[in-house]
Amino acid sequence: MRRVRLTLEYDGIGFHGWQRQATGERTVQGVIEEALDRLPGKRGPLCAAGRTDAGVHALAMVAHVDKATDLPDERLRLALNAHLPREITVLDVVTAPDGFEAQFDCTYRRYLYRLKVYRDQPAGLALERDRVLPVFRRLDVEAMDMAAETFVGARDLSVFATQETRSRTRTVYLCALERCREELRLHVAADGFLRNMVRAMVGTLLWVGKGRLSPDDMHGILESRDRTCAGNNVPPQGLYFVEAGYRDWDRVRSDTVARERISSVLG
Amino acid sequence: MRRVRLTLEYDGIGFHGWQRQATGERTVQGVIEEALDRLPGKRGPLCAAGRTDAGVHALAMVAHVDKATDLPDERLRLALNAHLPREITVLDVVTAPDGFEAQFDCTYRRYLYRLKVYRDQPAGLALERDRVLPVFRRLDVEAMDMAAETFVGARDLSVFATQETRSRTRTVYLCALERCREELRLHVAADGFLRNMVRAMVGTLLWVGKGRLSPDDMHGILESRDRTCAGNNVPPQGLYFVEAGYRDWDRVRSDTVARERISSVLG
Repeated sequence: MRRVRLTLEYDGIGFHGWQRQATGERTVQGVIEEALDRLPGKRGPLCAAGRTDAGVHALAMVAHVDKATDLPDERLRLALNAHLPREITVLDVVTAPDGFEAQFDCTYRRYLYRLKVYRDQPAGLALERDRVLPVFRRLDVEAMDMAAETFVGARDLSVFATQETRSRTRTVYLCALERCREELRLHVAADGFLRNMVRAMVGTLLWVGKGRLSPDDMHGILESRDRTCAGNNVPPQGLYFVEAGYRDWDRVRSDTVARERISSVLG
Repeated sequence: MRRVRLTLEYDGIGFHGWQRQATGERTVQGVIEEALDRLPGKRGPLCAAGRTDAGVHALAMVAHVDKATDLPDERLRLALNAHLPREITVLDVVTAPDGFEAQFDCTYRRYLYRLKVYRDQPAGLALERDRVLPVFRRLDVEAMDMAAETFVGARDLSVFATQETRSRTRTVYLCALERCREELRLHVAADGFLRNMVRAMVGTLLWVGKGRLSPDDMHGILESRDRTCAGNNVPPQGLYFVEAGYRDWDRVRSDTVARERISSVLG
C-alpha cells in the first residue's frame, strides 16, 4: 500500500458534508472512496484535514489514503477524476511520506466566508446562489472588522460551538474582514475549528454590522461561553475550506497561498 | 392591462432554454409566466429580446409582458421574485410605454463567452463547472484576437448558422477577446444573432488558437457560407446574455454597462 496525499476542490451543495454516513447519504468522502474502489488495488479509509458540513465548499481540502496501486501520481489523479462527478476535482496527488496524517499533522486550517451586500438591484442573486450569503442592508464594516480582530488569540470558544467536544480551546491566528468589490470576505485561520465555529462567528459579526452589538461587546460574549449570547449560524453555502497547513502558521505565506487560490476560482 | 419591462438574471442550467415548449419542458419563459399567473390579473405572453438556448445564462435579459395589475413596479418585482425559483431573479421592473416591444425594438444584443485556460492544476473545474468552458492547452491568444476582429461588419453569416432563417445577414458591432486573469472572454455585440452564432464563432476561434486555422483564413471561411468550414459549436454553459440595447450602438456606453454587470456578478 502506498500513502498518497490528495488535494481536492469540491462544490458542497450536492453532498451531506464530508463524512461517510452509515445511513448512505451522498457525502464527499463516500463518493471519492467509491472512485478509489473503481481502480485496481485495495485501499484504506480516506481521511481529511477537516470535515466540512453539508453545503460547505472546498478550494483545496487535503486528505490522505493508502492505496495498493503502481499508478504514478499524475496518472492516479487523472484516473480518479475520470471516475468522479463534476462537483469534485482532484487538483493534486503526491506520494506522501509513510505515516503522513492529513488530520493529525495539520497545524492550521483556513476558511473563507463570503457575504455580498446588495444595494438597489440584486445582480448575482441567481447566478451566485449557493456561493455567497446575500445581505440586503447596509453594514457597518468598520465595526465588524474591529469585532473580528477580537477573536484572534487562544481561548475557550464555547460561545461559537454547536456540539460538545472535550476541549473547546482553540487558537485563532487570523480573523480579518476584507472588502472585495460588492463582497465582504471573512478570512479565518486557527489550529482547529469547533463545529459551525466560522458560521457562528459570521452571525455574530452580522449583529455587529447591523448595530445590535458593538465591537466592545465581543470580550463579554467570548467570556460568557454561552452559545445563546452569540449570533445565529449563517448558512453553509458562503463557506469555503481554503488551506490545510502542515508547517508553523505564517501569515504572509498563508495569505499568498489563499489569495492565489481564491482569486483563481472566485475572482 | 399595463405593459411592463422586466430585466432578468438567470442560470440557464436547469432550463430547456428561454422559449416555452409545447412538450412541457421546464423553460425560463414558462417558469416566469407561471409566476405571473400566481399574481391576480390577466396577462399576455412574455416576450424577450433574445431566446437563449438550454444552458445559456443571462446577466440582464430584457422582456415585456402585459399584466392587469395595479401593483407598483417595485412591489411587482418583489412579488414575482417571491414566486420564482432561485435560479431566476427579476432585477428590475418598469412600466413601459404602450407598444414597447422587447424583441422588435431591440437595436443590438450583447453576449459574453467565457473560456478558462487550465495550466498545471485545474483549480475551479468543480466550482466553476457550468459557468466557463475549460480549455486544457495553451492558446495563441493574439491570433484569436486578430481572427475575432475580422468578424466585425455587416455580412452573410451562414457559416455560423445552425438553423435556416430567411436572412442570414447580420451586423456585428463588436467581437473582441479580453484576457481576465486565467480567463479569456469573448465579447460579441450585433444587431441580431443567428442560432448558435456565438458558439460557432468561439469554436472557430479555438481552431485559430490551436493553430489549425490562421486569422488570414477567416475571410475565406466567412465567404464560404458553408457551416462545415467553421469550428464546432462550443457548449452553451460559457455563454451569457449581457445586454439588450434600445438605442443606437455606442461602444463606450455598452462597454460601461457590460463591464459593470459582468464584474459585479462574475468578478
